[in-house]
Formats: sequence, structure tokens, C-alpha cells
Amino acid sequence: LRTIKVTLAYDGTEFAGWQRQANERTVQAVVEDALAPIEKGAVTVIGAGRTDAGVHAAGQVATFQLTNSIACDALQRALNATLPGDVRVVGIDEAPPDFNARFDARRKTYHYWISNGAAVPPPLRRYAWHIPQPIDIEAAASAAACLTGEHDFAAFQATGSDVQTTIRTIFVSRLEAIDASLWSPVPQGLRLIRYEVTGTGFLRHMVRNIAGTLADVGRGRMAPEDMRAILRSRDRARAAATAPPHGLTLWSVEYPPPLAR
Amino acid sequence: LRTIKVTLAYDGTEFAGWQRQANERTVQAVVEDALAPIEKGAVTVIGAGRTDAGVHAAGQVATFQLTNSIACDALQRALNATLPGDVRVVGIDEAPPDFNARFDARRKTYHYWISNGAAVPPPLRRYAWHIPQPIDIEAAASAAACLTGEHDFAAFQATGSDVQTTIRTIFVSRLEAIDASLWSPVPQGLRLIRYEVTGTGFLRHMVRNIAGTLADVGRGRMAPEDMRAILRSRDRARAAATAPPHGLTLWSVEYPPPLAR
Repeated sequence: LRTIKVTLAYDGTEFAGWQRQANERTVQAVVEDALAPIEKGAVTVIGAGRTDAGVHAAGQVATFQLTNSIACDALQRALNATLPGDVRVVGIDEAPPDFNARFDARRKTYHYWISNGAAVPPPLRRYAWHIPQPIDIEAAASAAACLTGEHDFAAFQATGSDVQTTIRTIFVSRLEAIDASLWSPVPQGLRLIRYEVTGTGFLRHMVRNIAGTLADVGRGRMAPEDMRAILRSRDRARAAATAPPHGLTLWSVEYPPPLAR
Repeated sequence: LRTIKVTLAYDGTEFAGWQRQANERTVQAVVEDALAPIEKGAVTVIGAGRTDAGVHAAGQVATFQLTNSIACDALQRALNATLPGDVRVVGIDEAPPDFNARFDARRKTYHYWISNGAAVPPPLRRYAWHIPQPIDIEAAASAAACLTGEHDFAAFQATGSDVQTTIRTIFVSRLEAIDASLWSPVPQGLRLIRYEVTGTGFLRHMVRNIAGTLADVGRGRMAPEDMRAILRSRDRARAAATAPPHGLTLWSVEYPPPLAR
């Protein structure tokens, strides 16, 4: 039995999230269904992160076991020929037998995009949250920066969650303007803002709740210093509303060195 | 009667092109239909370029006349509230009474995108032509560069066209790799190539026929020097197949100084 590690990119717009559910189009189900005729039997695919409905991925990592001896590059071509265009296998590799995309993951990185301006360029409409009001990028960036380190993120957890601990470690938490000139000949009319966050793990809706709060800081509804106070309060009611799913992308997943390839 | 100049961005995927046609979803028809209830009567919208089915725009320019005295920024908001998400008014201005987006246009710029690598990242799948084979960017760039100047572009005109002259002037003709790191955490697996062309005007399918030929040069099916020979031959049969419409974007339209705003 071989263990295969794939890196998947998908457009979450038309998916009810990663995880297989009855009567819903999910990424896991679409990938498992593409593998079944190759393996001539059911295959279970384990994803590093169970992205929510509408959330995208550029570098989701998944593992599965195969008896078929097909070469990795041929398997990648076969899967991409079968899969719909909104899911792509962008990387593939043989992995150690006990490698598990979910339990071996050490760090995940998410990107959250905001399209700031009067109108969203159509190619960004599925991938960026539209905020028409002016955003103070410096204020939002300074609020973002204070999240690095080990903290109790209970204030940014979806209500009704039940996890053992709400303590997580964040290595990178950075908000910045990125080049919008690829999308518009009138770039002064459009600002593209990216929030990038890397951590050991994330609570349910945590990145979207942080993004919503950063957007409130940027729009002057909160001060940058409020971010630290919200974090300390451990009170979900003090953070802002959850930002919409379509701005969020699971960017990459990191593994310890022997599994990193 | 006021003359209004709008800059439009659209995703051409679900349009049968710019120009109104019976029983087809076209950009002109969608914009005219959004204006009618505001004007309380039919409005004719004139576009600078009549983009083909599947071709996108980031800065199409269009003009129309209005009796309604609504302020430009309110009109922009009203149109964007009515229009579907795949068409956006990204700029709006009052124009001189006789200003005509089509006849006053002096230069147009098109961008053609190629996604080069094993798999197209899903957010690019509607906006870039996928070429999996290796592309020699230097060879393609050198073929692109020899198109600047005044030439007879008959070899790159759609067969069956009937125009007075096939002579056009090209000011910019540049092919280059652009930053793919916004779309993929594994950028070595993806190269994004952009061909940029600015000219006084373009023959039917001219940019797509040039892009197809540049792609053949990049894949080694032709030599860079063949570009000049094809141009001189004035023979459509010597150029490559027309590149697909979804890689093409009408980027911007320029007007003489008094109308340039």
C-alpha cells in the first residue's frame, strides 16, 4: 500500500467546503470520486485543513493510500483530466507509509484578501471581500502585528465551539497592500489588501473573525489598541462580525523536515 | 443632453461579446438595460472596442447620452447596484457633447495571459490560456518585439475579413513573465506570461492570432525570426492558430488630451 501526498488548489465558490457530506458538492468527495476509478475501489482522502463552504485553497495538502502502482506524474495528469476545473492537483509525491496530512501538519498559512475601492474588478469578485469605505492600512497592520506569539484566541472562536484548548501560537500576522496593477489600468481606484497569518493551528472561524476585526480597525470603527484588549477579554462578543468566506484562502501547510517534501 | 463616459471592467466568460445581439447575453445589452430605468427610456451605449465572445475587459470605455441630471458618482453607484457582478463601472465622467468612445479612441491596449505549468490555479482558469509545455520566454519575447512600428498585418487578420486597409501601427509589443506568487505557494510549478500590445487599432482576431504565433515560437514550433517572415508574407495561413478568447483582456483605451480624462 502506497501513501500519496497531493497539494490541491481549489476555488471554493461552488463547494460546500472540504468535508464529504451527503447530497453536497464537497472537495473531498470530488477528489475521492476521481480516485475511485483509478484505484478500482473506494479511496479515503485526508485533508490537512477542513475548509468551510466558500473558502478557497492554493496549497491544501491531502493524503490517501493506493494499491495501484501508477507513477506520480501520470496520476497527477489523470486526476487533472478527470477533476472539474475548480479543483487542481498542483503537486504530488510519494510519502512515508504512516504520513497523515492532518495529524502531521505543523503550521498552516491562510491569506485573506480585501478589495478596497468603489468597485471590485470582476476577476477578484470570487476571491476578495469588497469594502468600499476607505481603509487605514497602517492602523489595520498595527492591529494585525500584535497577534503574533502564544495567546488564548477564545475571543476569535466561533460561538458554540467545543475544543480542549483555545491557546494557539501565531508566527506571522501581517496585513499589507499588494500590487493591484495586474487587475486595473486605473490602480488609484483600487487597493488590494492581503492579511497573511501562519500558526500551529486555528480555531473555527478564527481567521475570518480576525479579518473582520482588522477591517473594523481599518475603517476606524475600532482603534488598533483594541485588538490587544479584545484578545485579553476572551470574549467573542467584543470582536467584530465574521468576514465572508470568499476572501479566505488556505495558502499552504508545513510539515516537519522528513515529511516536508 | 449630457454625454457620459464610463470605464467598464467585465468578465467575458458568460457573455456573447460586447455587441447587442438578439437572444444573446452581451455586455452592451446588459449596460443598456441597467441604464433604461434610470433614464426612463432606451439608452444606446457606444463601446470603444467590440470585444468578442469570451474576451474580458479591465478598461473598456463607453459613452452614452442622458437627459437625467443624476451626479456621476451616484450614477456609478446606481449602475453597480443594478449590474451583475461580472460587469462593473470602474470609472465615470462627464464628457464633451460630441465625444464618441469608438471614433475618438486613439490607442488601445490589450493583455493576453498564458498560464504555463502542469495545472492552472483555479482563479486563473477563466483569464489565462493554459499551455503545459515548456515555453522559451526569451524567444517569444524577441518575436513579440519585432511587431512594433507600422506594418501590414494581413497575416494576422481573421480570414474572411473585409476592411479598407490592413495597415496598423503598434507602439508596444512586449511579452514577459509576471509575478505568479499571488496564485501559488509553489511558484516554481507555475509561470505566468503576459503579452501586452498597444496600437492605433487592431484587425479582427489580430491579437489572438499574434498570441497563438508567439506561443508557437515559445514552444519551439517556429523560430523567433519566422515572425518577421510571416508578417511580410501577408498570408494568414503562415501564422499559427487563433489563441483562445479567454486569455485576452481589453486593458485600456486612450483618447487625445482634451478627452483623456
